[in-house]
Amino acid sequence: MKVGSWKDVAGKAVTEAGADGVAIRVLMGDNVGATNFTLRHFEVAPGGHTPFHAHPWEHEVFVLSGKGRVKRKDGETDIGPGSFVFVPPDEEHAFANAGSGTFSFLCAIPATKACLR
Amino acid sequence: MKVGSWKDVAGKAVTEAGADGVAIRVLMGDNVGATNFTLRHFEVAPGGHTPFHAHPWEHEVFVLSGKGRVKRKDGETDIGPGSFVFVPPDEEHAFANAGSGTFSFLCAIPATKACLR
Repeated sequence: MKVGSWKDVAGKAVTEAGADGVAIRVLMGDNVGATNFTLRHFEVAPGGHTPFHAHPWEHEVFVLSGKGRVKRKDGETDIGPGSFVFVPPDEEHAFANAGSGTFSFLCAIPATKACLR
Repeated sequence: MKVGSWKDVAGKAVTEAGADGVAIRVLMGDNVGATNFTLRHFEVAPGGHTPFHAHPWEHEVFVLSGKGRVKRKDGETDIGPGSFVFVPPDEEHAFANAGSGTFSFLCAIPATKACLR
């Protein structure tokens, strides 16, 4: 068993093209021997956003704090603490900060995928 | 894409032997076509706890609110908002409320498993 706090994991700036003001922390993945899925923590600074992109695996997102917006090809939806978002494989998406404080969320992906790690 | 809030999902009492005061909400699983992993939301009432059990698949847990305690065969650890817990396959574990308010957490499991659903 591994117990920790997200605050004790060093954040890394996401440098993928199209990302701005995004920090990632891999909470449970290769570091704990997770073989099926990986749980990551994201912080998005005011004005920041993840890339608008698609990939052949899903996301399961849960919003922790702040005001956010999830964008898709045909529109966008406001999200906040307690919101969850399922992004199916191959659907274009981006997560943007829509407020003045930090927007943070969890995002799970299959363990063998390398999106924003 | 599916967007929702955990509060809009109806909670179900966990009736598995050894559980007390636990409500579960499946946020993303069969309901959204998730084929790899399932994200569930748990609320544990004061004095309540999940079963002390083991199973051949892992948990990835993230604490949202309240004061909790994760129990294992050889001890226990206090956890609170922002804590994460990786429970490897076959390790005995239970999550208990250690405070006077609701203890809530997210718990991801492989999608094909049926633990506390």
